[in-house]
Amino acid sequence: MTTLSIFPVTGIPELSEGDDLAGMILDGVELEEGDVVVVAQKAISKIEGRVVHLDGIEPSDQAREIAAADDGDARRIEVILREAKRIVRLRPPLIICETQQGFICASAGVDASNAPAPGMLVLLPVDSDASAARLRDELRDRGGVEVGVIVTDSFGRPWRRGTTDVAIGAAGVIVIQDLQGEHDPIGYELHATMIAVADEIAGAAQLVSGKLGRVPVTIVRGLDVRGEGRATDISVPPELDLFR
Amino acid sequence: MTTLSIFPVTGIPELSEGDDLAGMILDGVELEEGDVVVVAQKAISKIEGRVVHLDGIEPSDQAREIAAADDGDARRIEVILREAKRIVRLRPPLIICETQQGFICASAGVDASNAPAPGMLVLLPVDSDASAARLRDELRDRGGVEVGVIVTDSFGRPWRRGTTDVAIGAAGVIVIQDLQGEHDPIGYELHATMIAVADEIAGAAQLVSGKLGRVPVTIVRGLDVRGEGRATDISVPPELDLFR
Repeated sequence: MTTLSIFPVTGIPELSEGDDLAGMILDGVELEEGDVVVVAQKAISKIEGRVVHLDGIEPSDQAREIAAADDGDARRIEVILREAKRIVRLRPPLIICETQQGFICASAGVDASNAPAPGMLVLLPVDSDASAARLRDELRDRGGVEVGVIVTDSFGRPWRRGTTDVAIGAAGVIVIQDLQGEHDPIGYELHATMIAVADEIAGAAQLVSGKLGRVPVTIVRGLDVRGEGRATDISVPPELDLFR
Repeated sequence: MTTLSIFPVTGIPELSEGDDLAGMILDGVELEEGDVVVVAQKAISKIEGRVVHLDGIEPSDQAREIAAADDGDARRIEVILREAKRIVRLRPPLIICETQQGFICASAGVDASNAPAPGMLVLLPVDSDASAARLRDELRDRGGVEVGVIVTDSFGRPWRRGTTDVAIGAAGVIVIQDLQGEHDPIGYELHATMIAVADEIAGAAQLVSGKLGRVPVTIVRGLDVRGEGRATDISVPPELDLFR
């Protein structure tokens, strides 16, 4: 019987720029070949120094205008606009943006919750696939074990309430499982069956890590999803997108 | 250490109308209090007889027109239109619809893959929350165990490639975990943190059940998500929806 198990890596403290996350993971868990190491984006952002303080941010006119519609902080809006390639939908306080990496999400991923201190904002990693690959490489080189890494964030989605955790960075894993050309048992060709397994893994890990538990790293064990996908491959190319 | 485990219920044969799914589950697995029993929509639809044959379907003019744009089968489009409350986006062969229950998905959930025979289509359950509740009640009454039930389907989503399994029916579980009013460790109020746990559970189960494995029932063990949510509560009310 195939059993998938998901468990947290305990003992990882509050993280700061330059912290050795790979070392903490290797200290906290006996990794096995083929494990998927799921890391919350905030952990990556903090060790990479992707944190800004609102003090010293000079809002643009556009940021002031958006903020005024909802009595918001124009400096926070300014940070969001700098992280965004463009605004997809605006209904203050909700600003849905396309990030520089091409992910579409609220506030371009800029978030004040679980920031290091009040007045600080955590930004998404500059290149979250590269962040995942670096961690994968370190775990291989120092731990001697070949694992996959997925970096996750909580994204809302159209039509359905609530957030689910999705993959914004990946290394060493399949991100989209393509069943194109495979057949179901009566021979019907599953011609459009692409499963976003990296997003399902991200969501599964969130069930364990929770939002307030401060458990930034979760292990998913028992899947065979070794591959070389990147989370940016999950984004729908603009020309095919019906919802931009 | 909290470990979540996910495993399939093996030994469930191809299902037909009237089959005793609860009995098959109770025969196949020793359920524990608080387990979440995740059932693929197709299994529910088949035992409920929600299957139609294309023979005998008379397409409307609208169905013929949509089908003509892509050399499609107008009878199949007709079935989709009957299941839909309205069309959200149309780019043949893609038809994104709002179902009668209010879910937004491709083809109003109508699907030919894994149908009982060629020329047959499987429809969504009429009331998938009620389907989940019936199964939950049967498992309680006959198995003596209080579990949650989630009925799942594979939905695409805007902006991100691939499908993830989501909850279209639920009983005995929290579907949206509301962290409103809770605080993160530095006191920032998480004022908009609603987590769609039922969808994350559905996706997690898909990782195990797979698409071609014909494993219609999966058990998720180790979560505490007892509650009384319904999957239809996950749908965003039209007046709040930015993407209809």
